[in-house]
Amino acid sequence: MALSTQPYKGARDFYPEDKRQQKYIFNKIREVVERFGYEEYDAPILEPTDLYLAKGNQEIIDEQTYSFQDRGGRNVTIRTEMTPSVSRMVAAKRQELAYPLRWYSIPNLWRYERPQRGRSREFWQLNVDIFGVDGIEAEFEVIQITDQIFKAFGARPEAYEIKLSSRKLVTSLMGDYLSLNDDVAIRLIRLIDRMKKLERGEFIKKLDEILPAEARAAGKTEKLLAVLEAKQLSDLPDELRSNPSVTELEKLMALLSQAGVANAVFDITLMRGFDYYTDIVFEVFDTNPENNRSMMGGGRYDGLVGQFGVAPVATVGFGLGDATLANFLEANRLLPELKTETDVYIVLIGDVFEKAQAVVAELRKRGLNVAVDVSGRKIGDQFKTAEKKGITYALMIGDKDLEAGKFNLKNLKTGDEQNASVADLTKVVRG
Amino acid sequence: MALSTQPYKGARDFYPEDKRQQKYIFNKIREVVERFGYEEYDAPILEPTDLYLAKGNQEIIDEQTYSFQDRGGRNVTIRTEMTPSVSRMVAAKRQELAYPLRWYSIPNLWRYERPQRGRSREFWQLNVDIFGVDGIEAEFEVIQITDQIFKAFGARPEAYEIKLSSRKLVTSLMGDYLSLNDDVAIRLIRLIDRMKKLERGEFIKKLDEILPAEARAAGKTEKLLAVLEAKQLSDLPDELRSNPSVTELEKLMALLSQAGVANAVFDITLMRGFDYYTDIVFEVFDTNPENNRSMMGGGRYDGLVGQFGVAPVATVGFGLGDATLANFLEANRLLPELKTETDVYIVLIGDVFEKAQAVVAELRKRGLNVAVDVSGRKIGDQFKTAEKKGITYALMIGDKDLEAGKFNLKNLKTGDEQNASVADLTKVVRG
Repeated sequence: MALSTQPYKGARDFYPEDKRQQKYIFNKIREVVERFGYEEYDAPILEPTDLYLAKGNQEIIDEQTYSFQDRGGRNVTIRTEMTPSVSRMVAAKRQELAYPLRWYSIPNLWRYERPQRGRSREFWQLNVDIFGVDGIEAEFEVIQITDQIFKAFGARPEAYEIKLSSRKLVTSLMGDYLSLNDDVAIRLIRLIDRMKKLERGEFIKKLDEILPAEARAAGKTEKLLAVLEAKQLSDLPDELRSNPSVTELEKLMALLSQAGVANAVFDITLMRGFDYYTDIVFEVFDTNPENNRSMMGGGRYDGLVGQFGVAPVATVGFGLGDATLANFLEANRLLPELKTETDVYIVLIGDVFEKAQAVVAELRKRGLNVAVDVSGRKIGDQFKTAEKKGITYALMIGDKDLEAGKFNLKNLKTGDEQNASVADLTKVVRG
Repeated sequence: MALSTQPYKGARDFYPEDKRQQKYIFNKIREVVERFGYEEYDAPILEPTDLYLAKGNQEIIDEQTYSFQDRGGRNVTIRTEMTPSVSRMVAAKRQELAYPLRWYSIPNLWRYERPQRGRSREFWQLNVDIFGVDGIEAEFEVIQITDQIFKAFGARPEAYEIKLSSRKLVTSLMGDYLSLNDDVAIRLIRLIDRMKKLERGEFIKKLDEILPAEARAAGKTEKLLAVLEAKQLSDLPDELRSNPSVTELEKLMALLSQAGVANAVFDITLMRGFDYYTDIVFEVFDTNPENNRSMMGGGRYDGLVGQFGVAPVATVGFGLGDATLANFLEANRLLPELKTETDVYIVLIGDVFEKAQAVVAELRKRGLNVAVDVSGRKIGDQFKTAEKKGITYALMIGDKDLEAGKFNLKNLKTGDEQNASVADLTKVVRG
């Protein structure tokens, strides 16, 4: 029975045209991130399962990961996110590393989920982290980087929005301002996280279900709803405005605005899924109403490195998924048509393969990427192959050309032809 | 209890200095391979286990792979080599693709083996394949590519040797020349594969154990030993020299020699591990007696694409492992000292973070990679951090510099300092 040609469910093959797009996107990202002094690292795709259990995410381990025992009985998990791995690496060299440490990576990650548009089981995610900075200079920098990434692809500021909030502010809202206990607070936070996906009536109904009777009687439903209406920091009630996080957020937004980041807004309803965030959090949203979703998320997580038995390290970082970014770029027509890396296709006229080698070698030596048609087919068929491969130039080599030391070069996009030496034709191809 | 900072056994973390070396090696490889018109592709790291079973390697699946059931009951394996995946991808688009097809990839692969020098459980392997070429133009091209890869790193031709043989020739040696049956032939091939690792006496003893009594009586031990002594194709007995594979090998070696590949030699004892090779096979050996091992291996395997129920496609390809290559480059001192991608480290004098932003932005806009010290520490400590990070230039920004519009730039390697505008200092950094 013949084998299936399908890749594993939820994962995709990268044919050269797909790989080319991925490389284009990743290289542009690398350029921006390195502009800010970040250095690339990587970690193994398999990690001890304990690394993920530490965050208390047993449910995620059980349902959403690729976890198994290796042949030596070790429990391993294919990495689902990079944050635990990078925290492990920093902890391992806690004393040797020079802070502030600026690191990035573009790992492939796996999650066992139902595949859907913009969400596959194997995906890539840019991870940018700065270690060892307590102040908002760190948040300022990484948010600036995300903004510059979108701008580097040519995105208009109106096409995306950077939302900011603070875990500490939310804690203060739940505890100091509304006097709710932790259990109620956690349930409310989860509900608020889904607020924009719910009808307002339904949201209020669920809110009342979570709030204790005495809290409802004390008008806390209305009090919370009023806070959630805040469009900017100055809309917050005075009791919350005095929270140090508000001052930090104000400073951060002023710095961003001064640096030309025009689309950062405060959004008290922004809750990030992961439990490890400790203060300011942020997300970048696609403003297109048909695709209004989060493309990137991050924040401060000062506690993770310390889980490895070393002194904690202040950390701010974010993750940006490849599929959501690619969808955004496509929808905004920001992906250029990418052409093959091959510059010249050699069309052989007659039995000249051996004799043509010196010319081919010279073209390559001059830095051109050259593919040779070795099929022995008719010239017309060789041209068709060059066109199918999307190569711009075809260079014909026959006995007469070899004798003359001059060759016909055809631009397959325009039809232009010229006859010249290898040196001159190289200049033509170089443009 | 604190979590372990160790990566999974047999896999390694890539700190920025490690990642930099990996990128240097891979980018040089990409440059050479693309020079020959090859295009990069990729496939998922998880494949259906069936893909590997097809080659009949149940033993390898059971003992050397990371295989498990996913949560949906599918048997999956983390890829152990790229050949099955690329054959699957070609088969899936058999009719649409334009031949000759030139593809390459640098996947990470996993094998469950005892970790040792030059062999880890996670490793990377350059895979180069040409599809759709029946003649030795294909072998000529891919062997030329491996030679050019070694030369691109600056390797002397004496430092490595390219060994060539042919499966068809070995088949003819066993069947036509020695009249041995398939079972004996297979056992002999496995023994010859280990010949150079055995004492000569032991090798002959094992040879006699495999050969049937009547074959030994007919002097076939001596006949085989004589053939295995062949140093070049012309040393082969006439009965074997008339084999078409010999003519092919002669043509191939002539082409290689003409193209400046000076170190290709015929070696009848070269057997490649995988069963799927159908004709010419080749390996590149490190000639250093202390490290005399195979660094790259490949050959023709015309049968794999056809396993997917489509018409077969002639294929020649090779794999080159990252660790063996890196060991070779290190031993031959061919790895340059790589410096960080960060060009300039900003040393802030006093509380000028906010005011310094315009200068930092201008440096970045001019294309420099700039990291800012936001620690607020003493100037001396900031310089020390820049040095520890291996950054060549430090640029000092204080109130007076901002007023003057001129800044002190210090070359941390030479100690040279100069005071100039951002535009002029950018030129200095650019060299």
